[in-house]
Amino acid sequence: MVASAFLPELWTEILIPVCAVIGIAFSLFQWFIVSRVKLTSDLGASSSGGPNNGKNGYGDYLIEEEEGVNDQSVVAKCAEIQTAISEGATSFLFTEYKYVGVFMVFFAGIIFVFLGSVEGFSTDSKPCTYEKERTCKPALATAAFSTIAFVLGAVTSVLSGFLGMKIATYANARTTLEARKGVGKAFIVAFRSGAVMGFLLAASGLLVLYITINVFKIYYGDDWEGLFEAITGYGLGGSSMALFGRVGGGIYTKAADVGADLVGKIERNIPEDDPRNPAVIADNVGDNVGDIAGMGSDLFGSYAEASCAALVVASISSFGINHDFTAMCYPLLISSMGILVCLITTLFATDFFEIKAVKEIEPALKNQLIISTVIMTVGIAVVSWVGLPTSFTIFNFGTQKVVKNWQLFLCVCVGLWAGLIIGFVTEYYTSNAYSPVQDVADSCRTGAATNVIFGLALGYKSVIIPIFAIAISIFVSFSFAAMYGVAVAALGMLSTIATGLAIDAYGPISDNAGGIAEMAGMSHRIRERTDALDAAGNTTAAIGKGFAIGSAALVSLALFGAFVSRAGIHTVDVLTPKVIIGLLVGAMLPYWFSAMTMKSVGSAALKMVEEVRRQFNTIPGLMEGTAKPDYATCVKISTDASIKEMIPPGCLVMLTPLIVGFFFGVETLSGVLAGSLVSGVQIAISASNTGGAWDNAKKYIEAGVSEHAKSLGPKGSEPHKAAVIGDTIGDPLKDTSGPSLNILIKLMAVDKEKTCFC
Amino acid sequence: MVASAFLPELWTEILIPVCAVIGIAFSLFQWFIVSRVKLTSDLGASSSGGPNNGKNGYGDYLIEEEEGVNDQSVVAKCAEIQTAISEGATSFLFTEYKYVGVFMVFFAGIIFVFLGSVEGFSTDSKPCTYEKERTCKPALATAAFSTIAFVLGAVTSVLSGFLGMKIATYANARTTLEARKGVGKAFIVAFRSGAVMGFLLAASGLLVLYITINVFKIYYGDDWEGLFEAITGYGLGGSSMALFGRVGGGIYTKAADVGADLVGKIERNIPEDDPRNPAVIADNVGDNVGDIAGMGSDLFGSYAEASCAALVVASISSFGINHDFTAMCYPLLISSMGILVCLITTLFATDFFEIKAVKEIEPALKNQLIISTVIMTVGIAVVSWVGLPTSFTIFNFGTQKVVKNWQLFLCVCVGLWAGLIIGFVTEYYTSNAYSPVQDVADSCRTGAATNVIFGLALGYKSVIIPIFAIAISIFVSFSFAAMYGVAVAALGMLSTIATGLAIDAYGPISDNAGGIAEMAGMSHRIRERTDALDAAGNTTAAIGKGFAIGSAALVSLALFGAFVSRAGIHTVDVLTPKVIIGLLVGAMLPYWFSAMTMKSVGSAALKMVEEVRRQFNTIPGLMEGTAKPDYATCVKISTDASIKEMIPPGCLVMLTPLIVGFFFGVETLSGVLAGSLVSGVQIAISASNTGGAWDNAKKYIEAGVSEHAKSLGPKGSEPHKAAVIGDTIGDPLKDTSGPSLNILIKLMAVDKEKTCFC
Repeated sequence: MVASAFLPELWTEILIPVCAVIGIAFSLFQWFIVSRVKLTSDLGASSSGGPNNGKNGYGDYLIEEEEGVNDQSVVAKCAEIQTAISEGATSFLFTEYKYVGVFMVFFAGIIFVFLGSVEGFSTDSKPCTYEKERTCKPALATAAFSTIAFVLGAVTSVLSGFLGMKIATYANARTTLEARKGVGKAFIVAFRSGAVMGFLLAASGLLVLYITINVFKIYYGDDWEGLFEAITGYGLGGSSMALFGRVGGGIYTKAADVGADLVGKIERNIPEDDPRNPAVIADNVGDNVGDIAGMGSDLFGSYAEASCAALVVASISSFGINHDFTAMCYPLLISSMGILVCLITTLFATDFFEIKAVKEIEPALKNQLIISTVIMTVGIAVVSWVGLPTSFTIFNFGTQKVVKNWQLFLCVCVGLWAGLIIGFVTEYYTSNAYSPVQDVADSCRTGAATNVIFGLALGYKSVIIPIFAIAISIFVSFSFAAMYGVAVAALGMLSTIATGLAIDAYGPISDNAGGIAEMAGMSHRIRERTDALDAAGNTTAAIGKGFAIGSAALVSLALFGAFVSRAGIHTVDVLTPKVIIGLLVGAMLPYWFSAMTMKSVGSAALKMVEEVRRQFNTIPGLMEGTAKPDYATCVKISTDASIKEMIPPGCLVMLTPLIVGFFFGVETLSGVLAGSLVSGVQIAISASNTGGAWDNAKKYIEAGVSEHAKSLGPKGSEPHKAAVIGDTIGDPLKDTSGPSLNILIKLMAVDKEKTCFC
Repeated sequence: MVASAFLPELWTEILIPVCAVIGIAFSLFQWFIVSRVKLTSDLGASSSGGPNNGKNGYGDYLIEEEEGVNDQSVVAKCAEIQTAISEGATSFLFTEYKYVGVFMVFFAGIIFVFLGSVEGFSTDSKPCTYEKERTCKPALATAAFSTIAFVLGAVTSVLSGFLGMKIATYANARTTLEARKGVGKAFIVAFRSGAVMGFLLAASGLLVLYITINVFKIYYGDDWEGLFEAITGYGLGGSSMALFGRVGGGIYTKAADVGADLVGKIERNIPEDDPRNPAVIADNVGDNVGDIAGMGSDLFGSYAEASCAALVVASISSFGINHDFTAMCYPLLISSMGILVCLITTLFATDFFEIKAVKEIEPALKNQLIISTVIMTVGIAVVSWVGLPTSFTIFNFGTQKVVKNWQLFLCVCVGLWAGLIIGFVTEYYTSNAYSPVQDVADSCRTGAATNVIFGLALGYKSVIIPIFAIAISIFVSFSFAAMYGVAVAALGMLSTIATGLAIDAYGPISDNAGGIAEMAGMSHRIRERTDALDAAGNTTAAIGKGFAIGSAALVSLALFGAFVSRAGIHTVDVLTPKVIIGLLVGAMLPYWFSAMTMKSVGSAALKMVEEVRRQFNTIPGLMEGTAKPDYATCVKISTDASIKEMIPPGCLVMLTPLIVGFFFGVETLSGVLAGSLVSGVQIAISASNTGGAWDNAKKYIEAGVSEHAKSLGPKGSEPHKAAVIGDTIGDPLKDTSGPSLNILIKLMAVDKEKTCFC
């Protein structure tokens, strides 16, 4: 009999919730700090409130004062715009959740019926599948508990997304106001708000999962096979919600953005985020529902799936068979350690160092990645040493494979470091500090066509290193510990999710801050500062997408393994017609899906264009700024369109596995999954990097900080116009079709895993 | 013992060369008819030459005469331009062939050394690999004969490409001159010239292969295993040349095209093909070396590979074991029948019906596809009935599989009809007669950005049906007759290659004809006619690319099977780390390759832009039309750039299999191949259709034949400008990176097949 883990079970039971609670507390503390930036415009609160006795809690000079602009009205205007954005976002999310609710009830019903019917809804206990000599709980119970876990996963996802959106809309105007005091102050507000989102999501995801396991354990007792089987519902719940968050949110944000730009920037020649543009609020709402709530639910889905995939494999490995609870909870211990590591990492950005100049922003964000990865490596070593026996066995397609604890340490590490590499490569290809984006900007000299050609080529090229990084992670983790290894590698990549989300959410917050500055008519120096924050934000958004895609690839492979094990297959042979056609058709699905999402953005944007044009034509005084546009109609158009347009791609994702499995069997289905995985990853990475590069090439020309950039600008020059075209094309690529592919990759796998009993 | 084929061996020996010779004769006859359009401008030859005693051999009125333009000078000018194009193309091809020659000698040496070293350069006979009781010829002999076959394949490919280019440059000015008499006359000249290329390539490919087999047989005698092993060199030779033709030609043509457009159309605001543009001749040369010579060598490579793959599998199946020569030659009989069928089909376009109006062009070309497919179905039935025993066995990864003749008939048919479906879907997505292209054109209203978004979405969507068609072909043929089935399905798709190439080569000839009309300063009515021909040509070019991609997919799968058999693998299991990372990295390679080729076009185009700008700036009177530009320098820039830029993508294709095989072994290599196949097919199809759609959306706006089209035009309107941007982006996608992927897909497979002895 192999030894147990060093860490006693009681300690595990205490440590995990404590870490989760620390994470939540830290998140609330950050929120409290952000809330000290006052948004009320009455004299008393804004000029003498706060502990530091200065304006807005600080003693710094404000730009507006220097330039003699009325401070009061600016603050009031910011508050008003923020309220409009927040209301729009809340209204969209509530509409979305109405449909989500219907879907959830329906899908929960299907899960219950499918799983319950396996043993004919029998309430009798049965021999366990993997240990025949033991008795396991009836399938009907597992069906019921799976359904409960599914609902919990879905609710946690919804809550995380919603709260993230709330803090983001709470922070955007505050970031704008702080930008008056300097770029460093604005940065810290945006970053802290991102951290609220990151820690809240990571900690609550962990806490709910932990509590669910412990509550279910009361019923299941020693039947861990059934227990962790039921827990997989949590992952499915999380990632199903991501379908709505990512696809719906993605369509929303880009319909509004493209629609606003096409009429505003191109036809009416007014600046981005100009308050006269009726779609401008919808555009800013979109940043929050798409990039924040959508990204949050996507990463939460990956995190939940990876944890559940690891747990379900572990339950039929020596951890489960020996009832070694600490080792069983290894994935949760990794996540707990991740919260502590990210907490320390965050302090480096908020307290240990201070941002004083624009050029320090990107290094500060990059350092977050490096610091968290380095500390986390030590953290993983500690967890692997105390949380695992020195040697144990792992279930591997029908056999048990002996694994050492240092091998598992390497599995987690390889995922973690692959994440860092993906982050750096993404930064290199999308930041305007390096030659790739500068070359793309330079190609704008010869017009939009060369800009697009160079941008597409950049995106294609940017997949090379990330794919090698993912391939190496898979190779190492798969070789050492089969699908368990792949699942913990995914968790390794996601272990610093709090930091990853913080720097990711920072982007849309800065973007919104810039929008608010423009709409509130603040000085162009403020706008320059928020633009600098936003340019860094584009890069971090691309990095976040890189993480999301990389982890989605690993997670879906782990789920694929789980599906194949369950279907009782031991080989998926490419040299059979069924598998090779599955691969071919699977590799096609991401294209089909992308065509759908891009078309959805296109038609939603056209509706928006018509409405914006209508308002410009029928509302007298709108262009002169004397009349107010009807923001609410535009918000409604985006909301309705995204809910409606989400259905076809959603059906493709949900129905394909069922149809293929039913008509063509498990082998073809395995091929389809592998094909869509290996092909989807490439399109997702290239789409998100191409889009990020175009956006930053445009910002590079606008900012004009170098001689080269100045020769291409200023705003309105021919190269700048070409750059704007590239930016507009990149919008749906980077924010809708690219990120939505994560969902395709993951959900097809999990959908199969849970519902296919072919 | 199974029965032999119905057709006696002697008949087979006679029928195949007779069909090939008929094909060559028909091709020369078409050339003769085209040559009756006189290009000499002296009075005697042009007004009284030819049998019909009318002008240029016909009695029709010429537009120029009606409009009172001097006929003599126009003819002289056309002849002069044609000579310039022809000289440029010849000079490029000779430069290319110099490098090809070096490569061929080098690669032939490698093949000889690799294959010879298998048995340590021993000259002793050895027991056969698959029939141990028999004696086979020494490996050294097979090495020598393989090398000879390789050189023959390469030379045939080079010759076909070269002659195709020659007839195309011979026909373009003649098409222009005929356009004065009407669109029908011009169509028939362009189409006949395409047919010359098509029949010459199909027939000479078949004839050389047939003669090689018979000559080698004198030495090999009964050792068919060695004989057809040596013959595979022919396929490798053919497809290696395609690397140069497709990649080099693709870079050449688009560097010139993009370079010419960027300065001419966008900066200087002069029309396309304006004679003042220094890059205009290079642009027209590019059409011939890229779309004609490159396409020819690509399709020839597929044809040769498919035949060789089928032959080598057959040699270790019952055909080979029983020495049933007729059944053995089944692939060649299919191709022979194909030549006869295409001959009849061609008469439908040239003799049975006459084109009278522009709107009849597309249906006429489409009918070519339908007619050839329908007749060929009967032809395949005949060949399968007389050329095959009713039942036989086929080698299938180490075992023998029983196959009926009707099953093999279905294998060939499914490939043939899949080709037709791919053709029709391509037509639907790229012809401006249908809604997809019209929608793309419509999206130009809101600018270049929506045009690009809609175009990309169209390309993504257009992969769905072709992929299903290819998947069904693979499934049917693989299930019935393993890799032999896949190889003959590829041959089925390529059996109507003569017609396919005819309608494909028709495109660049019409394109050139339009260019010559513009350069010769002919009336806009001539240009309208050639533009109508060219719009149909864009569609047929896309159809040709569809065929090329579809057949490349089938061929590379067949080669993949051959490689796997030879490496002694019986399963390639996706559930092993080595294979799954192979798949992932393989799926990435087409992106890497596309990034390289697009970047190559970009940098070559920038060099061209500089030269064109330099000439406009330094040659006095160029813009006014009083001075002549220096065409030759531009031709030289394109030539040098394409030769140089071809090296990195070429190395990627040639070295990847060797490096992966050497460092990671056969399983990873199998994964890489499968991955690059399933991913590359998608990018290739979507790139070529997106490009075709953009080109025709632009033409749709320019032609302005419908109310809708008129509302978007005319030339120079904002929507038209947006359409031009899309067209320019599409150029490298559809003519360089997309088609080059065929080479990646095929060559990686064959390269492995021949050189990997892991």
